[in-house]
Amino acid sequence: MFRAFAYQLMTEGFAAAAGPAAIPGPTLECEVGDVLRVHVRNGLPDKYAQAITMHPHGVRYTPEYDGAYMGDFTRAGGYIGPGEEFTYTWEAIPESAGAWPYHDHGPNHTLNSMRGLFGAIIIHPKDAPRPDVERVLFLHSLAPPTTGLKRVFQCINGCAYAGNTPTIEAKVGQNVALHVFGIDDAFHDFHMHGHRWHKDGGNFVSDNQTVGPAETITVRFKEDNPGRWLYHCHVMSHQDNGMAGFYLVTP
Amino acid sequence: MFRAFAYQLMTEGFAAAAGPAAIPGPTLECEVGDVLRVHVRNGLPDKYAQAITMHPHGVRYTPEYDGAYMGDFTRAGGYIGPGEEFTYTWEAIPESAGAWPYHDHGPNHTLNSMRGLFGAIIIHPKDAPRPDVERVLFLHSLAPPTTGLKRVFQCINGCAYAGNTPTIEAKVGQNVALHVFGIDDAFHDFHMHGHRWHKDGGNFVSDNQTVGPAETITVRFKEDNPGRWLYHCHVMSHQDNGMAGFYLVTP
Amino acid sequence: MFRAFAYQLMTEGFAAAAGPAAIPGPTLECEVGDVLRVHVRNGLPDKYAQAITMHPHGVRYTPEYDGAYMGDFTRAGGYIGPGEEFTYTWEAIPESAGAWPYHDHGPNHTLNSMRGLFGAIIIHPKDAPRPDVERVLFLHSLAPPTTGLKRVFQCINGCAYAGNTPTIEAKVGQNVALHVFGIDDAFHDFHMHGHRWHKDGGNFVSDNQTVGPAETITVRFKEDNPGRWLYHCHVMSHQDNGMAGFYLVTP
Repeated sequence: MFRAFAYQLMTEGFAAAAGPAAIPGPTLECEVGDVLRVHVRNGLPDKYAQAITMHPHGVRYTPEYDGAYMGDFTRAGGYIGPGEEFTYTWEAIPESAGAWPYHDHGPNHTLNSMRGLFGAIIIHPKDAPRPDVERVLFLHSLAPPTTGLKRVFQCINGCAYAGNTPTIEAKVGQNVALHVFGIDDAFHDFHMHGHRWHKDGGNFVSDNQTVGPAETITVRFKEDNPGRWLYHCHVMSHQDNGMAGFYLVTP
Repeated sequence: MFRAFAYQLMTEGFAAAAGPAAIPGPTLECEVGDVLRVHVRNGLPDKYAQAITMHPHGVRYTPEYDGAYMGDFTRAGGYIGPGEEFTYTWEAIPESAGAWPYHDHGPNHTLNSMRGLFGAIIIHPKDAPRPDVERVLFLHSLAPPTTGLKRVFQCINGCAYAGNTPTIEAKVGQNVALHVFGIDDAFHDFHMHGHRWHKDGGNFVSDNQTVGPAETITVRFKEDNPGRWLYHCHVMSHQDNGMAGFYLVTP
Repeated sequence: MFRAFAYQLMTEGFAAAAGPAAIPGPTLECEVGDVLRVHVRNGLPDKYAQAITMHPHGVRYTPEYDGAYMGDFTRAGGYIGPGEEFTYTWEAIPESAGAWPYHDHGPNHTLNSMRGLFGAIIIHPKDAPRPDVERVLFLHSLAPPTTGLKRVFQCINGCAYAGNTPTIEAKVGQNVALHVFGIDDAFHDFHMHGHRWHKDGGNFVSDNQTVGPAETITVRFKEDNPGRWLYHCHVMSHQDNGMAGFYLVTP
């Protein structure tokens, strides 16, 4: 089965210009066995005009669809100039099951990732039941260029401080899956109050897990503890500078 | 079964005032199935007077006993003012087996954690044999405020440099368990000379393991190698600035 | 079976003087059950004359062969002065199977590690098939002292930027094993384009894995995807400052 997604929303709504609502880009969701065709248009406004790409993690692709700028060795999808378009083809193989980031990997990838040019790919096992509540949370720093602020905020999905960051809601009895990504220069440490999970789906139980740049951790549990909870990065200066949010559980 | 612990020792002996002997706070030790009642009195001296809390990892608790300051949403146990008391109730469920940190999560949690307001909870499986040697090691930075020193020491349990940090002793044939916690802004990497262990209790063998803020790793082995050994954080500047200790094994 | 290795190549060719070809030192390769005898001569040129040692990870050794400078408690192999020699004896026990770093652990270990005084020990399971392609990749920073440059390059095996760093070659159908080590103050995050692997040999699939100082991750896969690929540290500033390389797969 083929699925098509539009990346243009993200580039048109480029975070620095459009505000935090555009961070992260659209979540691409599919099933093992699917082939993704992803139509990308570089819709960056003139002010930010530059080449971009879309590099995926986890999926299988040939070098043509790698989306990586490589200087003299750059392939077609590794340089999408202002106003240009490209269609990537990616395959969700059995080992792709899980959640993965995609992000700009063009000549200016660091700055663009700092501006929010990233998003998630969720690949469900074939014919498996889906979680009742499933959210993606990107941990990243952001110095909003339009504000002239020098301060670097520690953000979740483009926003800082609980109430601005995503407030996640669930009910007792629901299966919850939170896909947490690092997407800057720093290592983060995801903590959820009042809950624990099996780290990497194994035997070790954790309530606080390291997540490096472009890594994913998935926090899965069956909800059993109603109330208002905090989730946050446990790197203390990150928490203090905004990397925290609310999780609301109703009975 | 109920167990009661006094946190006041720690706050009365608040590290910055009382010296490193007060870091970490008392270890809370129990068994799966136990319910912990923890009586906390904020005994901070006037010089450091401020609200504190006690937020646990790993155990199960209702929001009332979360011990987290949340601004307008703060519950009773999330703000214990100077001279005030509070009793937390926490449950050691099967998934709580292991070792976990507790720490201040009040309005000034970062500074207080830097001053040493943290400790360990060890939860043994029900009716399981205990290790012969079991120690908790907190990896954290400390700039002693009473000394006026600018230098940040890299500490283990409030002290810097082998000989000052805990010297651990064991005999050949003993089962050893070392619970190692990160508890500052940094990521650490725990290395023990002359020994190896199964990372997170799985199949992968390591002698050097990453531990992030408020994470725990547990190093378990049966002792078989007598002599004087070093253990240290393998982040080189941390080791150089004091994050190392001795481990003495007798035949 | 005994195997002998000469460490002198590395110290004589000490990175700062000899250039990146001497980084890392020689790879020590053996099998579980082997005993390694490692003959070390401190051949540092006068300009860099100082005591060095060779401290191994993963293998079993008595304190005499620990290779760690410990001040008043230093043993014979913990201080090899300029022009001196020492022979270490290390044992590859079943739990040693895998890849491990060795490095200077003398009185000046941090600076020397920054200069490249490290290498790999690969210990194969007994009578097991070997990978068709096996490489060691050390992730570390380097400020070449002979150049007078202030800039810190982010290196792989002593070199910075794809084309200078190791270009790895493989063919479709080959079994590939890449042993990746951190060996400085930083945490790194190893990403390979177009491929994925089972983290720590378990069930969790990753294409991007954290590796701390003196930690090892091993990336294993059966090659099935021809083309020119990038591998790099996903800490963005590390990638920008050189920590990237090419992987070439032919059909």
